Amino acid sequence: MDAAASPLLTDLYQLNMMQAYLDHGDTQTAVFEFFVRTLPQRRRFLLAAGLEQALAFLENLRFSTADIDWLKSTGRFKQNLLDYARDFRFAGDVHAMPEGTAFFAGEPILRVTAPLPAAQLVETRLINILHLQTLVAAKAARCLLAAPGKLLVDFGLRRAHGAEAGLMAARASYLAGFAGTATVLAGEKFGIPLYGTMAHSFIESFDDEVAAFEAFARSRPDGLTLLLDTYDTEAAARKVVALAPRLKAAGIIIRSVRLDSGDLAALATSVRKILDQGGLKEVAIFASGGLDEDSLAAFVRKAAPIDGFGVGTSLTTSADVPNIDCVYKLQEYAGVPRRKLSEKKATWPGCKQVWRRYDADGRPAGDVLTIEGRAADGEPLIKPVMKDGRRVAPAEPLAAIRERAKRELERLPEPLRRLEPDATYPVEIAPELQELAAEVDRRMQSRLARATN
Amino acid sequence: MDAAASPLLTDLYQLNMMQAYLDHGDTQTAVFEFFVRTLPQRRRFLLAAGLEQALAFLENLRFSTADIDWLKSTGRFKQNLLDYARDFRFAGDVHAMPEGTAFFAGEPILRVTAPLPAAQLVETRLINILHLQTLVAAKAARCLLAAPGKLLVDFGLRRAHGAEAGLMAARASYLAGFAGTATVLAGEKFGIPLYGTMAHSFIESFDDEVAAFEAFARSRPDGLTLLLDTYDTEAAARKVVALAPRLKAAGIIIRSVRLDSGDLAALATSVRKILDQGGLKEVAIFASGGLDEDSLAAFVRKAAPIDGFGVGTSLTTSADVPNIDCVYKLQEYAGVPRRKLSEKKATWPGCKQVWRRYDADGRPAGDVLTIEGRAADGEPLIKPVMKDGRRVAPAEPLAAIRERAKRELERLPEPLRRLEPDATYPVEIAPELQELAAEVDRRMQSRLARATN
Repeated sequence: MDAAASPLLTDLYQLNMMQAYLDHGDTQTAVFEFFVRTLPQRRRFLLAAGLEQALAFLENLRFSTADIDWLKSTGRFKQNLLDYARDFRFAGDVHAMPEGTAFFAGEPILRVTAPLPAAQLVETRLINILHLQTLVAAKAARCLLAAPGKLLVDFGLRRAHGAEAGLMAARASYLAGFAGTATVLAGEKFGIPLYGTMAHSFIESFDDEVAAFEAFARSRPDGLTLLLDTYDTEAAARKVVALAPRLKAAGIIIRSVRLDSGDLAALATSVRKILDQGGLKEVAIFASGGLDEDSLAAFVRKAAPIDGFGVGTSLTTSADVPNIDCVYKLQEYAGVPRRKLSEKKATWPGCKQVWRRYDADGRPAGDVLTIEGRAADGEPLIKPVMKDGRRVAPAEPLAAIRERAKRELERLPEPLRRLEPDATYPVEIAPELQELAAEVDRRMQSRLARATN
Repeated sequence: MDAAASPLLTDLYQLNMMQAYLDHGDTQTAVFEFFVRTLPQRRRFLLAAGLEQALAFLENLRFSTADIDWLKSTGRFKQNLLDYARDFRFAGDVHAMPEGTAFFAGEPILRVTAPLPAAQLVETRLINILHLQTLVAAKAARCLLAAPGKLLVDFGLRRAHGAEAGLMAARASYLAGFAGTATVLAGEKFGIPLYGTMAHSFIESFDDEVAAFEAFARSRPDGLTLLLDTYDTEAAARKVVALAPRLKAAGIIIRSVRLDSGDLAALATSVRKILDQGGLKEVAIFASGGLDEDSLAAFVRKAAPIDGFGVGTSLTTSADVPNIDCVYKLQEYAGVPRRKLSEKKATWPGCKQVWRRYDADGRPAGDVLTIEGRAADGEPLIKPVMKDGRRVAPAEPLAAIRERAKRELERLPEPLRRLEPDATYPVEIAPELQELAAEVDRRMQSRLARATN
């Protein structure tokens, strides 16, 4: 069973509400937007990610006969809901920021316009898809900004939260700019470059470390990386120097060595020296083991001679910020803008557009949220991506998304690039949007006053 | 494509090592154990969870023709690996702690005994499966201990890290003792009780809050929960009181109300008063919105009149501890115990057993790690669950696992039950295991000395 494709991967209340909407004839057009309410202290920008999977979800969403039978068996639902589910196709419109675009709190990155029951049904899974990849792309971006010019590879499948988390973390970190991943399925499914070395268990299974190196080398003549820290890292580096000529004679080139424990900066320095003195200047040093953007920045500050890093658990679980306060909110129903009265300025009602202005150097200088259809200075970031349930264009290639993310990171305002915790980017609310919010509130207040008097 | 079932959901180095093992004839029996190296400060015990999915993974692991073709197309692998993959069946033995058992740092909860290439191949996904559920079960246990007697429900699918994380978080929290989940698929797949209310968007889509309540009530005559905080929580409670007789006349009973924002304890107190004065003493109050074990404990301390809680993002992302330092380590190969020299006391070589002693009140009094086969006082926790790739017994019912977890939480030593951060549970290492570790180290040291002299 593929949980990721099941329409039952949703909250029960979505189905309960769908039942009530159908009973009550509430099937007019609703507009929902997905946005992040507030940024955590250690995330001063995010990268939009996951749109491709969100659109695939909407395109393919079907209730199977087994799903319908099970819904019926629960005794919770009436025939009208079962009939609706049987015929269900998502036939709404979607507008979104392209993947790889930098965005900020309060800015919608996805808008769904569809009959209310359909727009409501897809809430849970849309959040689930967009949250995960946006979370990991932002973490990956921080690693990239902390270690410019270094080769960064996703090593985090094993402690990612399940299968989809591991696979999508590979995608999200690659689109943000990582060089690749160790997750084989991400190579097969997305064409992401794969990186792989060897584990301590390989070395341990041999009675002799050199024998282990040599056996591995003869099986992997290309792109060979040897792991040095199973017993004594510097001794292992000397063994690599001794082994290299024998391998070279067999046409096998050692590409890199990996350090996975101990004082990585100090070990890298001594290993670099051993390799250089042994004539292995071209062998790169790759480090891994509990790394995150803070440790990468520390290696860069110390100028540790490390060429690349495997970033694992901290990346795929976004360990310092394992979730983001993102929501999918009703903005309009039956042509009338809506919002929860208590939400104040965090939520702006109606269909919105985000306009980004750039300074003379081409760096983003500030965003304005407007009502969709009103013009403002700069570039509108939200574009139509699905019309009547069909994509308006083929899926964007991952390479193009990655190119966009690269440009976005390069041109981010400096304080945001330096990952300063107090850096902020200006997002203004257009006056007409503020007026609309006030109007919605007045409507709600007066209704409330009438109801309670 | 179901990522969760793909043999390619693994690290590239597993396949690289498999290639080298096959080339070198290293196909003797290996023993790997999964354990947690150290407990984070805010987790003084864990609950074993995920074994059922781990066994299902091992039973069903196959390379499809498409998988083989893709592996071949990468040009990375030789025919012997492709042949091995084509015929691959996991035919090893597995020993494990039953799900729902409390365990501590250094204690293996799963042991794989299989030919080295097979035991190595499954590493990544086994860690991925066991880590996720153990992580969430431990978080759920903390919530349960913080709010004894309260109804706790998993509300966290939307911000769980992907599809499998959401589904398995529902399972892991239920086996730990949660009453149920909002995730429909977890009801369908695992028979977990489902809970669902209504969203703010439902209320907002109506022009009038009472009309929304009534429409929802008439569609959901059973188990009705009304959401009060869309506009003004206390006013909404008064509307519920006014509406109740009309619904009752139609045979509809309001079971509970939900509060999702604001000062939940204060609002619960005033709503309780309004409901009681309105003759709705039997209507329960359910709260949600950014809750975790600390906020639950605070509500309990204040004696807030809240009967149940929806715990969402903090549960499913295990927000304060989003990952645990767990590993799957080679313990023995070809009959010889192994370990990484640098690992010191964190890793004990060889096949191990965990023995748990109980005091006169039946509470766990201390564990001892021994070499498997040696007797010790107490109960041995690790049992055979798979022999030659087949389960030794049918899958354990979730109800039985839940019963075990309940007993485990009830009889935990008091400091662990009170979630004190400095509480520790004694885990001893049997002398013969310490001697074995020293012996392995001596063997490695002497080999290292020979190699470097």
